[in-house]
Amino acid sequence: MSDDDQELGITESKTHNTGEWYAEVVRKAGLADYGPEGMSGFIVTRPRAYAVWERLQGFLDAKFKDTGVQNAYFPMFIPESYLEREKDIVEGFDPEVAWVDEAGNKELEERLAVRPTSESIITPYISQWVRSHRDLPLRVNQWCSVVRWEATETKPFFRTKEFLWQEGHTAHATREDAWAETMTRLDQYESVYDDLLAMPVLKGQKPDHDKFPGADTTTTVEALMPDGKSVQAGTSHHLGQSFAEAFDITYSDEDEEERVAHTTSWGLSWRALGALIMTHSDEQGLVLPHTVAPTQVVVVPIWQEDTKEDVLDYAEGVADDLDDAGIRVELDDRDERNPGFKFNEHELNGIPLRIEIGPHEVDDEELTLVHRPDGESVEVDREAVAETVRDQFDEIYAKLYATAEETLDDGVREADDRAEILGTLGQHGGYVKAPWCGDEACEEPIKEPMAAEIVMVPFDDEDPLADGDHEETCAMCDDAAERTAYFAKTY
Amino acid sequence: MSDDDQELGITESKTHNTGEWYAEVVRKAGLADYGPEGMSGFIVTRPRAYAVWERLQGFLDAKFKDTGVQNAYFPMFIPESYLEREKDIVEGFDPEVAWVDEAGNKELEERLAVRPTSESIITPYISQWVRSHRDLPLRVNQWCSVVRWEATETKPFFRTKEFLWQEGHTAHATREDAWAETMTRLDQYESVYDDLLAMPVLKGQKPDHDKFPGADTTTTVEALMPDGKSVQAGTSHHLGQSFAEAFDITYSDEDEEERVAHTTSWGLSWRALGALIMTHSDEQGLVLPHTVAPTQVVVVPIWQEDTKEDVLDYAEGVADDLDDAGIRVELDDRDERNPGFKFNEHELNGIPLRIEIGPHEVDDEELTLVHRPDGESVEVDREAVAETVRDQFDEIYAKLYATAEETLDDGVREADDRAEILGTLGQHGGYVKAPWCGDEACEEPIKEPMAAEIVMVPFDDEDPLADGDHEETCAMCDDAAERTAYFAKTY
Ligand SMILES: [Zn+2]
Ligand SMILES: [Zn+2]
Repeated sequence: MSDDDQELGITESKTHNTGEWYAEVVRKAGLADYGPEGMSGFIVTRPRAYAVWERLQGFLDAKFKDTGVQNAYFPMFIPESYLEREKDIVEGFDPEVAWVDEAGNKELEERLAVRPTSESIITPYISQWVRSHRDLPLRVNQWCSVVRWEATETKPFFRTKEFLWQEGHTAHATREDAWAETMTRLDQYESVYDDLLAMPVLKGQKPDHDKFPGADTTTTVEALMPDGKSVQAGTSHHLGQSFAEAFDITYSDEDEEERVAHTTSWGLSWRALGALIMTHSDEQGLVLPHTVAPTQVVVVPIWQEDTKEDVLDYAEGVADDLDDAGIRVELDDRDERNPGFKFNEHELNGIPLRIEIGPHEVDDEELTLVHRPDGESVEVDREAVAETVRDQFDEIYAKLYATAEETLDDGVREADDRAEILGTLGQHGGYVKAPWCGDEACEEPIKEPMAAEIVMVPFDDEDPLADGDHEETCAMCDDAAERTAYFAKTY
Repeated sequence: MSDDDQELGITESKTHNTGEWYAEVVRKAGLADYGPEGMSGFIVTRPRAYAVWERLQGFLDAKFKDTGVQNAYFPMFIPESYLEREKDIVEGFDPEVAWVDEAGNKELEERLAVRPTSESIITPYISQWVRSHRDLPLRVNQWCSVVRWEATETKPFFRTKEFLWQEGHTAHATREDAWAETMTRLDQYESVYDDLLAMPVLKGQKPDHDKFPGADTTTTVEALMPDGKSVQAGTSHHLGQSFAEAFDITYSDEDEEERVAHTTSWGLSWRALGALIMTHSDEQGLVLPHTVAPTQVVVVPIWQEDTKEDVLDYAEGVADDLDDAGIRVELDDRDERNPGFKFNEHELNGIPLRIEIGPHEVDDEELTLVHRPDGESVEVDREAVAETVRDQFDEIYAKLYATAEETLDDGVREADDRAEILGTLGQHGGYVKAPWCGDEACEEPIKEPMAAEIVMVPFDDEDPLADGDHEETCAMCDDAAERTAYFAKTY
């Protein structure tokens, strides 16, 4: 990145111009560039963003492996006939598919889809691998990229024609096992946000008309962005037996009876990066929690000619101590830049904690620590710096989480009729909870004028309207309310 | 995997039928399946093989990061005009390219290549990111899959139309820096084989007529397979300034002079897995060193009804101790299988070390350890089992390495004329060293009848023929020999 780019700084307002502000942060903090000419909708993921993705991968992959998941890799292409086979049960992704027609200077006999998701190629193999109840549960996951040729405008990480994700696919002996799997993965997705990205999320399920095609139940974690829109931040599908029946996943049980398996699939994409960037960043640039920050601490020595040697020595010692403790630290001892420039640059790039060291700190055997998110500054003893820094990381994480939690808590409102839903969404954004009969038609009066939709309904056992023991009616029609619908605008 | 498949065992001979034996090991040890109908040349990488790939990734990626490389991710498609641009300097991969013509139900204005390698899309971005000498060296790497539509027969991991690899791309201020980079990566590839896969390799460079298109020098590590063929096991290209000139990578030096950068690229693919499997495995199935084995130790308790409780308790304690020490251990306490079946299964699947525990071991507070590669059995004290196991791992690794080293040492022979080269290659395979004038035409008399080629020449400073201070003439023509050529058949 050239110095000129750095000096520009963020010019758009997060509050008033969220979209433009986001695009500016992504570009100026060196997170992503747009794809080449002729490839709108694609992005180049630069090292700073990719390093965050790697930490997310590491965190989630370890959870997967602790809970019986094995990684594998399936071909990136899927024969058209395989996608067709899936059509018996689902609509599929046809309109969004990219097709390979020619390869090796020859037209292909059967064209190949670039995978939009891999159920239709993975399930037939699971069918081959499962013979006996002893082969169950069978769990495979792959980290890969998928292509969906969406027509809508690109937003890096939120909406791109190619995106990175993981997709897990499992088979189980019973419906209950498959449901437990579905929830295990959803909980792990929640933990990514809660414990790694400093963001609370809502957990629930999609309304039936918005499920993954062919699924019994699609569960979701939803994150609220500062501009009041909801992001579908990870989904876990209980597929029931529809895929197992279509692709013939059967097993012999303990009594040698042939039975049909129950399957699940679940995915989380780099959209999580988009949600992370949008949630915490500000008008100085990127903000990251220490958990995923490529550089966690920057040490900036501040010297005059006569104090340079002492200050630099001291700063190097601090950086070495942190490095020895396994903290990702950078010492910015560049001669050609003044401290103010350095501060701005490291703020733009989202380093969570800055340590300033001048002659005063050297004399007093102290350090000045500055929190990236809010500029809070604390003076601490030089001794036990690694321990102190870890404590500060936790404080910064708690601050980020608290702010995001406040946004979410304040962002859930109630309404009882169409006008109130529309009014509340229009004024505040966020989620509006309303009693709902369960009919897709009753989403339309909100979706049509407002482009808001039902992003979630709580699970049965968490929804007071689900047991039927009440007098509530749907906010749109006169039928009895069967669920609480969460309306929101979405990315 | 069904029990029936396991029971089949390996039926082909490694010595006499290497290709069929290899295919059988790959399938029966659950490493890979062939792709779906209509997609010949593709494979499904199953968890056992993918786990090995993940360990290789972890090993190499850590080395990359320790030496200044950052990971990134670039689009999987490359516009045709970008590939064309590269054609000014190189022939390119055109005949092997898979093309996307249609996406989102529309014909594309410009068709997109599925990346066969990413120089043509990465280099233009490097050009944008490099402005000043302070931006150099710039190093990016991506782990991804690439597609090359080769017509020749599929061999899992060795030759597939889609394969996993990493590709690193760097820019430097000087020719010397770029050369040092090229060698750093080649040394890291050598270390993958030496220190992780228990295989020695030869290091050298490709003859000029077999360089990467546009490169100044292509360096290579070559591994000798047990059937006498050489595998190109990783390549590192010194690209000189040709790519930088074509894609305009310039920087201002310390005197504000505009200069053209020097670039490199380097890649290692899952072919390393193929070489690993073929080198160490045998007619009982897969053999892996502990460094990459998904399961490093299997504990097999051997009991009668009256000793079952004691034996199982003891075995669980051993497995727990190993697990606590971070060793990847599996306790095979299945009731429905006898020890002999278990031994065969774990041998097929390549677990490096087996611990047998019967009443005798319990009474004597001992353990019986069996090495997978050669069946060597040792009795050891139960105490300090983790330490003992680690020592045994090292012994097994040393055995595997020694065997592969013997194959390589015995596999390099010398010859002085065409008949001798052909005769030696025909009789022994392996490498035949011969004096060579440097002319591609002098490879033809070997290549044409034997399908052997010059896979490597030593580096200048390691080749006694390179300094011209000798009387040797080319083995094929009467010109002075300029290099020592290594002829071999290849995968
Ligand atoms: Zn209604
Ligand atoms: Zn010659």
